[in-house]
Amino acid sequence: MADDLKKGLEGVLVAESQLSSIDGDAGRLIYRGYSIEDLAEGASYEEVLYLLWHGQLPDAGELESFTDAMVAERAVDDAILEAVRSLAEADETPMAALRTATSMLSAMESESDVDAEDAEASLRKGRRITAKIPTVLAAFERFRQGEEPVAPDPDLGHAANFLYMFTGEEPDDVAAETFDQALILHADHGLNASTFTAMVIGSTMADVYSSLTGGIGALSGPLHGGANQDVMEVLFEIEESHLDPRDWVEQATDEGRRIPGFGHRVYNVKDPRAKILQRRSEELAETGDDTWYEITTTIEDYLTEEKGLVEKGIAPNVDFYSGSVYYQLGIPIDTYTPIFAMSRAGGWIAHVLEYQRDNRLIRPRARYTGPEDQTFVPLEER
Amino acid sequence: MADDLKKGLEGVLVAESQLSSIDGDAGRLIYRGYSIEDLAEGASYEEVLYLLWHGQLPDAGELESFTDAMVAERAVDDAILEAVRSLAEADETPMAALRTATSMLSAMESESDVDAEDAEASLRKGRRITAKIPTVLAAFERFRQGEEPVAPDPDLGHAANFLYMFTGEEPDDVAAETFDQALILHADHGLNASTFTAMVIGSTMADVYSSLTGGIGALSGPLHGGANQDVMEVLFEIEESHLDPRDWVEQATDEGRRIPGFGHRVYNVKDPRAKILQRRSEELAETGDDTWYEITTTIEDYLTEEKGLVEKGIAPNVDFYSGSVYYQLGIPIDTYTPIFAMSRAGGWIAHVLEYQRDNRLIRPRARYTGPEDQTFVPLEER
Repeated sequence: MADDLKKGLEGVLVAESQLSSIDGDAGRLIYRGYSIEDLAEGASYEEVLYLLWHGQLPDAGELESFTDAMVAERAVDDAILEAVRSLAEADETPMAALRTATSMLSAMESESDVDAEDAEASLRKGRRITAKIPTVLAAFERFRQGEEPVAPDPDLGHAANFLYMFTGEEPDDVAAETFDQALILHADHGLNASTFTAMVIGSTMADVYSSLTGGIGALSGPLHGGANQDVMEVLFEIEESHLDPRDWVEQATDEGRRIPGFGHRVYNVKDPRAKILQRRSEELAETGDDTWYEITTTIEDYLTEEKGLVEKGIAPNVDFYSGSVYYQLGIPIDTYTPIFAMSRAGGWIAHVLEYQRDNRLIRPRARYTGPEDQTFVPLEER
Repeated sequence: MADDLKKGLEGVLVAESQLSSIDGDAGRLIYRGYSIEDLAEGASYEEVLYLLWHGQLPDAGELESFTDAMVAERAVDDAILEAVRSLAEADETPMAALRTATSMLSAMESESDVDAEDAEASLRKGRRITAKIPTVLAAFERFRQGEEPVAPDPDLGHAANFLYMFTGEEPDDVAAETFDQALILHADHGLNASTFTAMVIGSTMADVYSSLTGGIGALSGPLHGGANQDVMEVLFEIEESHLDPRDWVEQATDEGRRIPGFGHRVYNVKDPRAKILQRRSEELAETGDDTWYEITTTIEDYLTEEKGLVEKGIAPNVDFYSGSVYYQLGIPIDTYTPIFAMSRAGGWIAHVLEYQRDNRLIRPRARYTGPEDQTFVPLEER
């Protein structure tokens, strides 16, 4: 029967999870019971990683050892940097470069002979990957700018150190806090396609390098991780049009054009992450360029209030505000999705380890609709 | 309700497919309606690729252009070879090296700016990857043997050329035909975990490099692609014991030991691929060492006839005979799974393209079983 077919697996429950939960009607997102607002406001990305991986928020001592371990694991081997350099020279995209470099990191893994049955070892490997992704991503950016990589600064947190290695300059507090919040907001979000990819790979008891490499591949797809880049391209277009943003969006919607960054398969109201990023965008606008904040809020007000999208359950999602926030932090738009991966690595690792604790190989079926009995004719008679 | 949970997605239909179908009770496997026996006997791996990708077997002219295109695409860029060399020097496993190299190939893709909406371009990219995987895998083997890579020979087919590049010597006809058959037998097998991984990644409209890199990662897992290696290790153990194989297996089963290569989630009778490989093993034994053929058939006879596993629906699967066949071809056991990937690339590409034709993002859900309302306590008060 056709309705047995679960194409897209929408609504199909494939696992139990204690990691994150989304209430799409209330616009609420929690990680292990903590609201995303509380975590973004009061915790660091490292604390959130610890929460996702270890089940509770760390105390001061636990956080210190965890942070020390990650800081010690930030450096990457010269062979990795050489491969990243050749990827930059070949004009590879940052997202594909990150996929290749993450896969290659396994060659330098000190516990490579320990298999995935050892959950503690997998967690340590995951922590090493998470610590090294910012280094790899920043090195790629430096190489394609014709510069040498900047070594990690052990005195800076995960977010600030990335901005430092990426731009070559230590970020101010507003930039560092904003980026740390953005990492927290993107760390986990149920079984999206990339997290599910990592889980399917992990269900074969492949190692965590394979899961993360697959997750990056899935996130690279335009239907998944690429939307904040699309939003920014629309914002550029509006700025270049020299039209009033309200006039531009009115004209665009009259022409039937779809504005990216609105609507989500899970949320029927405004994405709670969008609200937090909107406030950060406002804050960055106060001390810098307010162009992007003005354009985004104007579009949102027009679409949700004047065009009544809210009543239809279509509201801004996280991508609508993240793009302009990253732009205000000086990050090029083709690096927005890799930054998403840098954050989501935390959730990928958490879901893979949680699933492997009570593992079952993920192997669905297809309904065969092809021919049954074909008579084979040898090449010379075809 | 607990029974809503589809852990492992066993029996869940996620797509319609015209590619392959398995009748687990009859022991029958078809690709687009052709029996695996007919294809193994009468077609080449290149013809099977064409069948999977284009929907019908090629005529002579079609096969010639297809083969010419693949032959022209076998060479890989020096930057890839350098990365493969450094992976070999770092003692990376061949499977992880293949994952990294496949991901890296995208940096040299001439159509990298064409997105996955263009199915024809995706197919060409997939063909390029399939053509280059043997080159990469053979180069890795040569580097770790302290040798330089052997350039592809345009006069040899896909299977024979791989053996030539891998060993440095042109294979005889029996070896080339055996390996070609092994590639055909492993080219597709429904929605196993690696094929499903490739499809989940493809459902985001990520490019085919991402899908294949993810598929390789999933296949690397011991619950998926590693079983033929396990079989070979047991065969070595038997040989080293100097016991009669029948005595060894009797003692091992009395001790409750599980023999790898028996049983399959889908087959209740002998895997049709195992039957074909058993015949090839017999043929290789006639002109060479018959140790492995004797041991495997003795184990099979003992377990299926004397121990009555057949009545329980447990019979030899493809891995039970492929390991010793590869061994007889001179391939080291840690390269069996990469060879599986080299063949299955054909199926991964076919499934991804088929799914993307009527695409829907694959995004299941998890049942949240964690706490709901945790009160956030700042670090300094924990």
